[in-house]
This record gives sequence, structure tokens and C-alpha cells, in this order.
Amino acid sequence: MKIVVVGGVAGGMSCAARARRLDETADIVVLERGEHVSFANCGLPYYVGGEIEHADKLLVQTPASLEAALNLDVRTRHDVIGVDTEARTVEVRTPDGVRHLSYDALVLAPGARAIRPPIDGLDSPRVRTLRTVDDAISLREKVEAGARRAVVLGAGFIGLEAAEALAERGLDVTVVELAPHVLPALEPEMAHLVTEELRALGIDVRAGVAATAIEHASGHDTVVLGDGSRVATDLVVLSVGVRPDTEAFEAAGIACERGAILVDEHGRTSAPGVRAVGDAVASVDAVTGVRRPVPLAGPANRAGRQVADHIVRPEQARPIPAPVGTAIVRVGTLTAAMTGANRSSLAAAGLAYRTLHLHPNQHAGYFPGAGQIHLIVHVRDGDGLLLGAQAVGAEGVDKRIDVFATAIRARMTVADLIDLDLAYSPPYGQAKDAVNLTGMVGSNVLDETLRLWYADELDEVRDTALLLDTRSVAEYATGHLPGSLNIPHTQLRDRLDEVDAAAAGRAVRVLCASGVRSAIAHRVLAQAGFDSASLSGGMLTLRATLGDRAADVLERETVPA
Amino acid sequence: MKIVVVGGVAGGMSCAARARRLDETADIVVLERGEHVSFANCGLPYYVGGEIEHADKLLVQTPASLEAALNLDVRTRHDVIGVDTEARTVEVRTPDGVRHLSYDALVLAPGARAIRPPIDGLDSPRVRTLRTVDDAISLREKVEAGARRAVVLGAGFIGLEAAEALAERGLDVTVVELAPHVLPALEPEMAHLVTEELRALGIDVRAGVAATAIEHASGHDTVVLGDGSRVATDLVVLSVGVRPDTEAFEAAGIACERGAILVDEHGRTSAPGVRAVGDAVASVDAVTGVRRPVPLAGPANRAGRQVADHIVRPEQARPIPAPVGTAIVRVGTLTAAMTGANRSSLAAAGLAYRTLHLHPNQHAGYFPGAGQIHLIVHVRDGDGLLLGAQAVGAEGVDKRIDVFATAIRARMTVADLIDLDLAYSPPYGQAKDAVNLTGMVGSNVLDETLRLWYADELDEVRDTALLLDTRSVAEYATGHLPGSLNIPHTQLRDRLDEVDAAAAGRAVRVLCASGVRSAIAHRVLAQAGFDSASLSGGMLTLRATLGDRAADVLERETVPA
Repeated sequence: MKIVVVGGVAGGMSCAARARRLDETADIVVLERGEHVSFANCGLPYYVGGEIEHADKLLVQTPASLEAALNLDVRTRHDVIGVDTEARTVEVRTPDGVRHLSYDALVLAPGARAIRPPIDGLDSPRVRTLRTVDDAISLREKVEAGARRAVVLGAGFIGLEAAEALAERGLDVTVVELAPHVLPALEPEMAHLVTEELRALGIDVRAGVAATAIEHASGHDTVVLGDGSRVATDLVVLSVGVRPDTEAFEAAGIACERGAILVDEHGRTSAPGVRAVGDAVASVDAVTGVRRPVPLAGPANRAGRQVADHIVRPEQARPIPAPVGTAIVRVGTLTAAMTGANRSSLAAAGLAYRTLHLHPNQHAGYFPGAGQIHLIVHVRDGDGLLLGAQAVGAEGVDKRIDVFATAIRARMTVADLIDLDLAYSPPYGQAKDAVNLTGMVGSNVLDETLRLWYADELDEVRDTALLLDTRSVAEYATGHLPGSLNIPHTQLRDRLDEVDAAAAGRAVRVLCASGVRSAIAHRVLAQAGFDSASLSGGMLTLRATLGDRAADVLERETVPA
Repeated sequence: MKIVVVGGVAGGMSCAARARRLDETADIVVLERGEHVSFANCGLPYYVGGEIEHADKLLVQTPASLEAALNLDVRTRHDVIGVDTEARTVEVRTPDGVRHLSYDALVLAPGARAIRPPIDGLDSPRVRTLRTVDDAISLREKVEAGARRAVVLGAGFIGLEAAEALAERGLDVTVVELAPHVLPALEPEMAHLVTEELRALGIDVRAGVAATAIEHASGHDTVVLGDGSRVATDLVVLSVGVRPDTEAFEAAGIACERGAILVDEHGRTSAPGVRAVGDAVASVDAVTGVRRPVPLAGPANRAGRQVADHIVRPEQARPIPAPVGTAIVRVGTLTAAMTGANRSSLAAAGLAYRTLHLHPNQHAGYFPGAGQIHLIVHVRDGDGLLLGAQAVGAEGVDKRIDVFATAIRARMTVADLIDLDLAYSPPYGQAKDAVNLTGMVGSNVLDETLRLWYADELDEVRDTALLLDTRSVAEYATGHLPGSLNIPHTQLRDRLDEVDAAAAGRAVRVLCASGVRSAIAHRVLAQAGFDSASLSGGMLTLRATLGDRAADVLERETVPA
């Protein structure tokens, strides 16, 4: 059995290593276009920033170590430029010329390449990508050689990691994002928190605007934006996304969809004996059923392993699961993470859903260091099936997103979250953990114990309803919606007549800081016969939804003496 | 509707608050024996240690705040001493004498009380418990008044938290535990890591020995242990466990089992209209089916809420889930946590299981601060249903245990863990997270791709097999099993003849540092026809299993020049 693996990083190398562990007799050849295999691509920005000090840390394995441990024949600078799926051979450009190599099983793990948008002047030598160890070394050299300014095109995960790394190095960094906000996969009210953190890091965030040209001057470039503004820079990092690097394989007749290789649940392509994994393949999303590339390291590594099983012992091979799409990024002191679907993917899939916003503490409020996790969770209308979750906060974000990811994989409903026995002790959580609380709120919403209104309905609500702010008088004074009635929730039962008079037959839309007190108030009002609803996520979510407009919309006043 | 709740801390107060949110019209009375309601009982040790500075932090709610927010009638220093389940009244000892109170629905949440073992001299005024805010205040006063030495009887969660708190305050602390090791619910090889950390904190750990007497002297006590040793002390903290505080209710004819109130899935007791939640009830364990009290805050709080639902709107009430028994404790720089069953509860339940040991990093090895999580996972023989997990480490322990707890609740198998899409970025995890790796190892074990041997089989293995140590020569020199053959795993394929000669027909039992390289070696050996197995968890688990005996069992040598 001769197994040829194209691509020696995440999925490809996982496949080769697993194949060897299962079969000592197989010939296993790994062909890697680049200089390095098994390198830490997710670590590159941290090398640029200096947090990872030495580049050799990024080289997790070498061809020699893989030969010694696993008897793998790993060939770098071997670029596969063609496949003859009939003859079962690959055509490889090597340092010694073009060679042909036969296979019994071929595994394609070519990955993705950086998208190069149609921007004039993108050929400037100051434009870099951050996809390989050499990219990272070159970028760091440029920084250490005295670059003072950088523009990062694209505010996705790698773009933000690169921007922060460069800012840590003391550069003036501008991030340009075509989408309306940074981290486009995040909901806008979550992304706004990240934007504020980027600003706190001194990074200039330009979202909702395109880079239209890069003008070359002697010594620097100028990035021209769609709004006419111009940013002079010593360095441009291009990170507007990736696309499957599959031209040679599509040309060989292997079925693709918008460049992504189509595979079945065992990674089989349209060509017999040819399998594919990783960033180059189209995966069916676990939540929405949409087929698209999911360029994430975890699913790629695991799919590589599962494909090896299917090659060596197909009867025992588990299918490759549909990806849930869990992702995480550190931005300054914050962590932002997501799993499952967001509003836009749910809308595209035509799924009816309800949304929850919560701001629970990551651990007991009475324990030092307590801080909020900002959570948004989408659940299927009707049964409450968990569809997606996002979280931003200083601590405990990764834990909650991993629990949500597990619950989504298990096809739990939001009410099932109530029953999770999560580890509680004051330094780690609350007796009702953030995830349990999500279950409680979601269950209340689905059975109509709680009725929500949303910050993005504000304009309509202001026109048609009484806004009732149930925070304390002091909190109200720090910023509130004009025209809202302030009755602290602890006084509400005694002041229902005031609500009645002010509402004058209109609905009552309640709010507080985070949505906890307004939910209690809603219960009082609903049982007293009011048409009531509680603002999902409270003022915290309202402010984040308004974003930079919050200062204009909200009124502040001096606390009455 | 008049709802009377007995006990105003976790389960009781959750029940009362939820009942109010569901029903504005109910009369809700909470009767609490102590001075305080809704206090942070899990925070008490941190107040003693000073990490929580002010005692008022521990008082999360007061009767006045609960009255204002939720219109609850909360009465402290009201001790329920009898129930007439026919007449539906409770008899209450109050500051103003004994009173009777009628109810439509009664919820018993009396909690548990400290077990007082039969030790002579336990009546010393220097003996304290740590169950209430007043206990914590009194203990801290004692410390601040100059106590220099403390003995903690019982090395469970609260015992260790108390011991660490006192050690932080500069006291000489001795912990005495009757069971063979600290944290008796932990497996011994996990508990040993905690023991070492306690020693690093300067705490004297005496496990496997009873305290037999407390001798009173002027100015101090002396604790006498079963091995004849004597420990002079200024303070004794009694924390050998708790038992349901249910005498009054058992006397009223409410069915109990070994003092724990028997309830159905809605918290209903044997008496109509009487429900019970929290530390006082017997719960059916989710994994083993064994019925026993589970004195944990999380399940108590959630059960309180669910019981309120069942009182107010029974048709919509979700059943109270069987607890998985997740628990966590911080000990120095370590976190120790567990979920589900351990070996002893599995043995008691007669379940056949397999055990996995892993030591993966909490995040990418190339990212600064990487450190190991020590994991032990039990899975059901045959199908690999997850039964229990424990973890000890500096970082990332709580996250993994929460993922395991979620997976156990979802009745996942160990192979299902492979497919979890957990959040990966270098500061947070690995592309193959610790949990994914557990799935891979477990799946390999179940389908016999991997065969394990265990550290507790060492004596038998040494008598019957060749021990093959596949670590590097330098690692081998730092400590190895006498008589073991050292062939680094990278050389194994070329040196199989040496293995064959040394084995002389015997089985080969392989080991390395953590079980990764020995698993690769096992695959090589098994495919070459050897009767081979890999040491579960490697030398790390072996050392932890040997515990204090490791130094005697292992040989060290100078590295050959």
C-alpha cells in the first residue's frame, strides 16, 4: 500500500502519522510545497509580536523527526502540480525538476491561500501575508528593522492577531475591514466590545470601508480607503481571508464547488482512491447544513486522522463529523469566541430562532476578580435546540464556548443547559454557572415566562411603548434613554399606578443594566396585566448595539441630591 | 397559595425566588435557623484566608433585599422543629418562642450538618467547624488573635480549602485524613499530586490515620493520632464530612434513607405537599444509579428552582436531573476537579470499565506557559460510554472537566469526544484538545489498536514481562524501573532484534514519560508480532501511583558520557 499525502501541515500530517500507527508496512510519502512541515501556523502572529521568542518553536516537527518516530518519507519543496486519477500518479515539481509518483491512496491536504483582492498597488513589496513561517520571520525582521506604521487589511482572526502583535511591537497600526465591523463572524454587539478593546490597544479601527489602492512612494506606501482617507504605512499585512488552494486538483477533474473539493463523510472525492481534508474541502455545517470550507485547524487535524482510518481499515472508520465551527481569538485582555451559527448564517439557512443576551460573572461575584462574560446565544424557535453561541470577556470565555460547542454537538436544547453539573467553587464559577443561567433564561423565553425585546427594535419601541428603566436612580443617571421612566425594581410593586399612568394604554418595555432585574420586573408587570417585555441583555447590550452612536442616543444627568 | 420554605441558603432560597417570579400572589415564607440567608457558604474558607477581605461580601442577600426585590417573607433564627403533615403545619422555634405556621406547599431545604466523629475531647473550645458565616468570622478572629498552629481533621474539599487558608495566614497546619489519601473521592494517583502541592504549601499531610483523641492543655490542645503521634495545636478545624440535617422531618414521618430525605424526580417526599431539595435529600447518581446525598451547591440551587416550578405550574415542570457529581477545588497553584464516577463507585455499582491516563498540555506546547493537565477517565467496557473524569493541573482543568461533565450528561461515548469542535488558538488549547485526545486514546483502547497496562500491575509485570522504556537515554537516566530495557522510540524499528532477545519469549510492557511514545512503540511491536502493551499514563502516572514509594522503586543513574 502506497499512501501519498499532499500537504504536510495540519490535516495532511495527522493523516500520515495515523496511517503509520495503523500500518507499519505502508509506504507513506508526504509532499509539502513549502520549506517546513507540521509548523505552528496558528502561532505565527505570536512570533511576530515576540510572545513566542524563537522561530524554532514554530517548527513542531521536521522531516527528520518524522522519519525517526514514524518512518514517514516527508519531502519539502515538493509542489504537486497535477494528478492523473486514472493512472493514479501525481506530478510533482521538486528542487530536482518535475517528477511523477504513483499512489494507491492519495490524500489531498493542500490547504488554502490568501485571497488577493483587486486593489491597485497590491504588488508593493511592503505587502505581506502571514501564512508561513517564512512570512512570520520576514514580517518580524521588517518590524525589527524599524517599521513604525502598519496597515492590516482584514479584521478576521489572523488580521486582529497580527494587528495586536504589531501594536505590541510599538507600531502605529490601522485595521481596515470591508464588513461593518471587526471579526465579521461575530454579531455586531459582540464585535463592538472587541473594537473598543482594539482602540484601548491604540489600534485605529476602520470598519465598513474598502481599501481601494496602495500608492507606492519612496520609503513608504499609502493605503487609500473608499471614504477617501489615506493612511501612510511602512507595512501592509494582507489578511482578508483564504480560499482553497485546489487549482491543480480541479484541473485533474476532481469535483469542486467554488474551488473547494467535494468530499463524502469519509473524505472521499469524486475520484476513486483520492481523499481530501482540511481547508481545501467543502464541509457541511453541523447547524445550518450549508456546504462551505471551514478553515480551522482542529477539524482538519481530526479529519486527517479519520481519513487514515478509512484508508487502512475502512470497516472501523468513523465518519468525519460536520463541523460546528468553533473559533476563538485573544484580543488584548479579552477573549472572543464563537461556536455554531450566527444570525447571518441562520437567516441564510432560513431557520427561525430566538436570541438571548446574558452578562453573567465568570465566577462568584463575591470572589476577587469577578468580571462579566458577554454572551449571545441563538436557539431554534419552538424546541430551543441550541444553534450558536458567542462570548466576549476577560476570563472564562473559552470554557463556556467549549461547553456550548459540546452541547451543540450533542444536539441539546437550551433547557438541557439548566441540568449541566458544571464545576463550581468560587474561583471557577457560580452555583448557577453562566451556561446554566443561559438555560434558565432560554427556557423562560420559550415557555413565555419571559418575553424579550431587543436593542435593534429601539426606534420602534420608542415610538409605541413606555420605556421603563428599573435600575437604581444612581445607575439611571449615568446614562439612560430619553423619555424612559425610572422606577427601581425594588419599588415596582408599590408604584404600579405610576406605570399605568405613564403607559396610558401603551405597552411597557422594561430595561435594566444586564436584563436580570428587568426580567423580574417583567414578571411583576405581566402578572399585573401589562403588555410587558424585558430588554434582552439590558443596557450593556443596548450600548454595544448602538456602538459609537451610544453617546448620542443616551442622556446623562446629575444625580438628584 | 402559601409556600413555606425551610432553609434560606442555596436550594431553599432558589426555590423561594423562583416561586415568586412565577407567582406574584403566593405567600412565600422562608424560615432559616441561622442568622443569615443566601450567604456564600463556598466562600467561607477564602474569608478565613483573607482572600475575601470583608465578611459582608459573604452576605449575598439579606431578608430586607429579598423582601424588596421579591416580596419574600424571610425569617432568620427560625428553626423548624416539627411538621404535622396531616394538618399541614410546621412548628418553629423563634426568638419569640415556639410558633406554628400553616402551609399549602412545604419545601424542606435544611441542608446538612458537620459529622462529629467519636473522638475523645472533641468538645474542646478550640474545635471549630466551617459551615456558617459566624464560623468563618470566629475562625479568622482566632487566627488574627495569634493562633500559630492548626490541625484540620478531614481532607475533603472544605478541609483542604481551610488548611490552605490557614497556611496562607502563616499557621503551621497539619491535615489528618482517615482515608488513604487526601480528597478521598479522587483516584490515588491524582490525589498524590495534590498531596505534593499541599507539602509545597508547607502543610503537613497525615493520611491513612485516624485522630483518636484531643487532649486539652492550658493554652493549647494536642491531637493524638492512631499511629501514636501527637500534634500540638491552637486550633482544630473539624471537616470530616456532613450528614443530612433531617431529624425533625424523619420524626414527622417523612421517609428517609440513612437520614437523607427520599424524593421523586420533582422533589416530592412521602408526605403530600412536602418537597425537599439540597444536601438533605438522597439523589440517584446519574452514572452509577446509586442513591445517596450529593451535597453540592449547583444541583441544590437548580433543584430548588425546579421544585418551585412543580409547585406553581406542575404541568410545565422539568424533572430534577440525576446529579453527575462535578466538584472542583483550588489547592495552591493547582486545580483538582472531578465529574462522574470514580473507581470505587464503579466497583460498588458493579460496572465493568476501562481507565485512561493522559497528560496533555492545556494549550499549544510552543506557546508560553504550556503545562500539563493530568487526566484520568473511566469509560464503560464495550461501548465506551463516559463514566467519569478527573483532572489535576495548573490551568485549563475546570474547562476540561466541564466539557466532560457536559459529555457525560449527554451520554456520549469516549469516541464521541474525538468529534468535539473545541475552541482552538495557541493561548487556549491545542488543535487536538486534551478532550479530543482522550477520545482518540479511548477509541484506540476499545478497538484494541492500543493495549494498555497499568501502574498498579507493576509487581506482576516485573515478574512476567520485559519492561521496555522508550524514552531518550537522558530521560531514562533521571529515574527508571530496574531491569527495564531502554530503547528510544525513534530507534525501535531498527532494534527489534534486541527486544526479541531480551524478551526471550516473554511479553513486552512498554513505557515512556506520558504514554504517547510508548503507544507508538506498541503499534510497532504489536505489528511485529510481540505480545505488547503500553503503560497507561507513562512514568508520570507510575510515579504518582507509587507516591512516596517512587524514590525506593526507581533507579537513577549518571548519563553515559
